[in-house]
Amino acid sequence: MNLLTLFDYIGTFVFAISGTLTAANKRLDFFGATMIGFVTAVGGGSLRDIMLGDTPVAWMRDLNYFWLIIAGVLVTIVFGKFVMKLKKTLFLFDTIGIAVFTIIGLKKALLMDINIPMAVMMGLSSAVVGGVIRDTLCNELPLIFHREVYATACIAGALVYLFLNYIGLNEPVCEIATVVTIIAIRIVVVRNDIALPKVEIKE
Amino acid sequence: MNLLTLFDYIGTFVFAISGTLTAANKRLDFFGATMIGFVTAVGGGSLRDIMLGDTPVAWMRDLNYFWLIIAGVLVTIVFGKFVMKLKKTLFLFDTIGIAVFTIIGLKKALLMDINIPMAVMMGLSSAVVGGVIRDTLCNELPLIFHREVYATACIAGALVYLFLNYIGLNEPVCEIATVVTIIAIRIVVVRNDIALPKVEIKE
Amino acid sequence: MNLLTLFDYIGTFVFAISGTLTAANKRLDFFGATMIGFVTAVGGGSLRDIMLGDTPVAWMRDLNYFWLIIAGVLVTIVFGKFVMKLKKTLFLFDTIGIAVFTIIGLKKALLMDINIPMAVMMGLSSAVVGGVIRDTLCNELPLIFHREVYATACIAGALVYLFLNYIGLNEPVCEIATVVTIIAIRIVVVRNDIALPKVEIKE
Repeated sequence: MNLLTLFDYIGTFVFAISGTLTAANKRLDFFGATMIGFVTAVGGGSLRDIMLGDTPVAWMRDLNYFWLIIAGVLVTIVFGKFVMKLKKTLFLFDTIGIAVFTIIGLKKALLMDINIPMAVMMGLSSAVVGGVIRDTLCNELPLIFHREVYATACIAGALVYLFLNYIGLNEPVCEIATVVTIIAIRIVVVRNDIALPKVEIKE
Repeated sequence: MNLLTLFDYIGTFVFAISGTLTAANKRLDFFGATMIGFVTAVGGGSLRDIMLGDTPVAWMRDLNYFWLIIAGVLVTIVFGKFVMKLKKTLFLFDTIGIAVFTIIGLKKALLMDINIPMAVMMGLSSAVVGGVIRDTLCNELPLIFHREVYATACIAGALVYLFLNYIGLNEPVCEIATVVTIIAIRIVVVRNDIALPKVEIKE
Repeated sequence: MNLLTLFDYIGTFVFAISGTLTAANKRLDFFGATMIGFVTAVGGGSLRDIMLGDTPVAWMRDLNYFWLIIAGVLVTIVFGKFVMKLKKTLFLFDTIGIAVFTIIGLKKALLMDINIPMAVMMGLSSAVVGGVIRDTLCNELPLIFHREVYATACIAGALVYLFLNYIGLNEPVCEIATVVTIIAIRIVVVRNDIALPKVEIKE
C-alpha cells in the first residue's frame, strides 16, 4: 500500500468522524449519523467519478472504505467526548485528508485527459463536496461557502502539484510538496483567523 | 409482468403521492409538486443507477414510470382530502414499495458483481434516497435521519434476502420473505412508536 | 460557431451572474459565490448528462464554459451595482438561455433515442435544475417550485419544437420558434404577474 492510499484511508475515516459530529449536533439518530458519515466521506469522490463517468464509483470497489466509515461513525458515537478533545489531531488528519483527496482527484482527471482547469476542479470537488452535501442534508448553509477557507488551500496545492510536475520532479516529491503546501496554508489561515472577503452588492 | 415489477409500479405511484403531500405542505405550486413527486419516486433508483454506472437511468427507459408518477401527483391534487383519509392503505403500499425497491436495488448490484455490503447499500439507497431528496429540496431535515426507522427495516430485509438466497431457496420465496420481514418490522415499529436512539455528544 | 452555441454561452454567463447574485444575498465569500455561480450555470446540464450516461459531462470538455462562468462571477462581484441596474437585459438573456438550454437538452435526449416525454424532461432539467441546486445549497426553497413559472414556458417551448419538427420544418426554424415561444410566454407571465396555483390539501 503506497502512502497516497494510506492517507486516503485516513482521510475517509476522519471525514466520517466529521460527518457524525455534525449529525450529533443536529440530534440525528444512529442511522442518520451513519448516512451523514458516509456522504461526508464519499460524497466528493462520488461526484467526481460520476461527472467523469468512471463508475461504479471508487468507494464501491474497495470494501476498506466501507469499514473505515463504519469505524469512524462508531468511534464518534461511543467515544464522543474523547474524540472532541482530539480536535487538534483531527484537524491535522482532516487537512491531510483534504490534501490527499485533492491530489487523487487531480491525478485521476489528468489521466482521463481532462483539461487542466477542470482537473483542478475535480481535485477540489473530491476534497470539498462531501462537506457541502453533509451541510446541505443537515439543512445548513455549507460551511465552506462562508467560513472555512480550505478550498483556497486546495487550489494552491493543486497548482503547486501541476508546477512541480511540469518541471519534471518525480511523483512522490510533487505529492509531498502539495500536501505540505495545503497543510501550511491551512494552519496559517486558521492561526490568523483569515477569511475570504464576503461578496457584497448594494443597490 | 411479474410480481416484482407490479409492486415496483405501485411503489412508484405511492412515492409520487407522498412527494405531492409534502409539496402541498410547503405550499408549492403545481409544477413544484410535480417535480417533488418525481424526485421522491425516482430519486433513489436514479442515484443507485448513476453510482453503478447503469445509464440512462432505469425510469428513463420505461414510460410507465412517467405516467404512474403523473397519475400519483394528479390524484393527490384532485382528491387530496380523500387521499389523506387512506393513510393506512398508503402506509401499507408505501412499505411494500420500500421493500420492493430494496430488493430491486440489491439484486441489481449483486448482478453487477458489487460486493455484499455495498449491494445492501444500493438496496437501501433505492428505497430511501427519494425521500431524502424530497425533504432536502423542501428545505427540511430528512425525516428518515431523525424519526422514521424504515431504513433499519430495509437493512434487515436485505439480510433476510441474502441469507435465504445463500441457503438456496428459490427467488420468489426469498423475495416474499423479504417483503414480509420489512412490513412486519415497520408495523411493529410504528405501532410501538419505536425510534432509534439519537446521537448525543456532550463536551 | 452556430447560433445555438452562441446562446448557450450567453446563457451560461448569465446563469453564473444569477448564481453570484443569490450568493451575495446570502453573504457568501468569494469562493462560495464562485461555486454557486458554477452550479447554477452547469448543474442542469450536468444532471442531464449524468442521467443520460453521457460523461464526462459536457462543460468539462469545453473550456469556454469555465472562463465564461469565471467571467460572470467576477463581473458580478466587481460591477455588482451596475449589474443590478441591467435587470431587464439580464432577464432577456436569462430567458434566451433557458430557451436554448431546453432545446439543447431535448435534442440531445432525442438523439440518444430517449422517448419523447423523457426527452422533454431532459430539456426541462437542463434549463431549471441549476437554479434548483443554487437555491438548495443556499438553504432556500427552490424559487421555481413556488414562484417563477418559467418551467411551464420551457415545456410549451419543447412541445412547439417537437410539433414543428414533426411537420418537417427545418432545424433553425424550429429552434427560433421555440425560443420565441418561451420568451413570449415568460414576458406575458411576468408582465401580468401570473402564478401557477398552489397545491392545497385541507384535512
